[in-house]
Amino acid sequence: MDGSHVKIGVLGGDGYCGWAAALYLSRQGHEVAIVDSYIRRHWDFELGVQTLTPIQPLPQRLRTWEQLTGKKISSYQGDITNYDVIAGFLTSFRPDAVIHFAEQRSAPYSMIDREHAVSTQVNNVVGTLNLLFALRELAPDCHLVKLGTMGEYGTPNIDIEEGYITIEHNGRKDVLPYPKQPGSFYHLSKVHDSHNITFTCRIWGLRATDLNQGVVYGTMTDETALDETLINRFDYDEVFGTVLNRFCAQAALGHPLTVYGRGGQTRGYLDIRDTVRCIELACLNPAAPGEFRVFNQFTEQFTVLELAHHVQTAAKKLGLRTEIDHLPDPRVESEEHYYNAKHSKLVELGLQPHLLSDSLLDSLINVAMRYRDRIDAGLFMPQVNWRKTRNERRAANQTLESVAAEAGADGNSHRG
Amino acid sequence: MDGSHVKIGVLGGDGYCGWAAALYLSRQGHEVAIVDSYIRRHWDFELGVQTLTPIQPLPQRLRTWEQLTGKKISSYQGDITNYDVIAGFLTSFRPDAVIHFAEQRSAPYSMIDREHAVSTQVNNVVGTLNLLFALRELAPDCHLVKLGTMGEYGTPNIDIEEGYITIEHNGRKDVLPYPKQPGSFYHLSKVHDSHNITFTCRIWGLRATDLNQGVVYGTMTDETALDETLINRFDYDEVFGTVLNRFCAQAALGHPLTVYGRGGQTRGYLDIRDTVRCIELACLNPAAPGEFRVFNQFTEQFTVLELAHHVQTAAKKLGLRTEIDHLPDPRVESEEHYYNAKHSKLVELGLQPHLLSDSLLDSLINVAMRYRDRIDAGLFMPQVNWRKTRNERRAANQTLESVAAEAGADGNSHRG
Repeated sequence: MDGSHVKIGVLGGDGYCGWAAALYLSRQGHEVAIVDSYIRRHWDFELGVQTLTPIQPLPQRLRTWEQLTGKKISSYQGDITNYDVIAGFLTSFRPDAVIHFAEQRSAPYSMIDREHAVSTQVNNVVGTLNLLFALRELAPDCHLVKLGTMGEYGTPNIDIEEGYITIEHNGRKDVLPYPKQPGSFYHLSKVHDSHNITFTCRIWGLRATDLNQGVVYGTMTDETALDETLINRFDYDEVFGTVLNRFCAQAALGHPLTVYGRGGQTRGYLDIRDTVRCIELACLNPAAPGEFRVFNQFTEQFTVLELAHHVQTAAKKLGLRTEIDHLPDPRVESEEHYYNAKHSKLVELGLQPHLLSDSLLDSLINVAMRYRDRIDAGLFMPQVNWRKTRNERRAANQTLESVAAEAGADGNSHRG
Repeated sequence: MDGSHVKIGVLGGDGYCGWAAALYLSRQGHEVAIVDSYIRRHWDFELGVQTLTPIQPLPQRLRTWEQLTGKKISSYQGDITNYDVIAGFLTSFRPDAVIHFAEQRSAPYSMIDREHAVSTQVNNVVGTLNLLFALRELAPDCHLVKLGTMGEYGTPNIDIEEGYITIEHNGRKDVLPYPKQPGSFYHLSKVHDSHNITFTCRIWGLRATDLNQGVVYGTMTDETALDETLINRFDYDEVFGTVLNRFCAQAALGHPLTVYGRGGQTRGYLDIRDTVRCIELACLNPAAPGEFRVFNQFTEQFTVLELAHHVQTAAKKLGLRTEIDHLPDPRVESEEHYYNAKHSKLVELGLQPHLLSDSLLDSLINVAMRYRDRIDAGLFMPQVNWRKTRNERRAANQTLESVAAEAGADGNSHRG
């Protein structure tokens, strides 16, 4: 590590954000290695869904990357819920920083039923605990860059700060962790992680940056655009699809945009090209030993309805006529609420945001149109419901499975 | 349920607080059933330790209770990390309230090494998730009374409230969960539970009371004192022993009282006779549907050094000469700090505290003297260290195992 070039391990580097980050960091001249268990691809099989874009197996992706750029990214297959996997990786690669994307990251997935809630929390908490113990034991100076989520905060009626808040109470004052009100078993798992990491920074002097990321949109980065073999995931299904990507897929198919409830839910969003830059900024400016640092990683706030209108406008320019459907909200959340979240720390480190633009939306809708034959419109509609009992949810699963089976039978052609 | 008599399931009813609570509730006329996996007894074997008092197998305890009082407590053997166990129990017993003591409750145990940290968090989080899903599915109106810990709060520099705090910030105001700064992987597991339970009250309308309990002392209740067969646990070892009980065992043996660091660590404490009454008060005054209610369950604050002085004074009256040893603190914690925790909600419901008294200390030291031949003084000294690496901790474990093996070889006689 010479200050500007760092050895970086990307845990979960075969996933949506991980893949884009690995390529970006490699192109910037950092030495990059990926650890991945391919469980994200397995979840697609489980749910009977697939990414809109035809992603290639990781070894092929990496061969193409090396052929095109001359840069080698090494890869380690394994699941970090097995301690030996992460211990072996730290010992052999000796990274200066580890980016931890290796978690189950879908709120609806965690809400399918008890088994998915338990597996999400066990997977995420145990993987992170293993990583923390391995760092303490084998690489105590390695900088942990952990992907958290803005969803840890929920929607409090006061401004959201970056990780900590100064509280004056009964004439005394302290700086305390910002209170968390997560909205799914997945979001809860991230809160559990944050508490565990905070503790290990304090007792062992580990150095960690928690990136509380907003909702990511976009699929292309300069790197993934180099060749179709490098193409990134584009998830549009109700379980793993993020909202703006789903809207673009819907627009491409002439399907109504599915807004949950009134659509006043406000969240922080960012372009995946900013995700990868934020990761690099965290690596180049590591937390101090013993420091647990929190950055809110998003660039703009939108309501869901505002996003739908942006997509509607962009689609119209492309000659697509798009309706907006308000569905009953399958989640338990406020449909109108105060939301003002701070996000200045990454900008102070040098982030220059790619704000949401018509040209980005054009490009996203064009990607969706290019691969429209792969879209299964049956996957747009929410079937996981926050309020339903286990048995009711089981019934919903069966529907999801039937949808998947049907999709398999007819080759995933769309039926919008 | 007629308002004053309730059907109560006691999960973990074979443990220290659970056993005392089950008997007390039974004597008050409530219909009580115990669910326990006996894993607490297994942990004694694992660590090579045993309770100072000779506890009997649960079936024998329950037969004696029925013979003496005519009251029947039913028991179900099983581990609630297996969903079928808790689902089967709720279906067959149909409780109005479930008291959830069924967790790994030792901070040092959770700090032994990675395996113990992971097993503590998985055991506690998965057991509680299973319980929450089972309640939602099978007994949505049943009141969950969950044992939390005052250790969830840590030692902030402002007053500790009961679960929630009103925060004014940048001209706006909200009531938010009190920020948590837990001090071990065990305490972290309780924070994880609290967040999970809060969420399920919100989305499913479950009703729950979280009892953030202080450090419990004492062994006798009116019920356990009826017959030696009913005697409760008295743990004095460094892993499961609570501090005041350990001091009394040390005093009985003429061993110095082992104070960690300067001894200015301030915590909330309560007599086990108040624990059982608090449990009943929570059951008789259930949380409303959808409510996640938090009570701080302790009656007095002490520093560790104050407790040592109390024990020293009480021991002197019994003719015992007791020194105080200040050991290097094996934990990472402030040895002097502000501490002011609210604890009025249970008093408002009718709790009449048994404050720490010379007579209680007399009685505790007398219990310890009665069973002094069972004391293994090798178990007093802290071997689990918050700062040590895994390998260093492994070495410490080996020492602990050697101590245990030696204790086994010489019949657990003391060597103070």
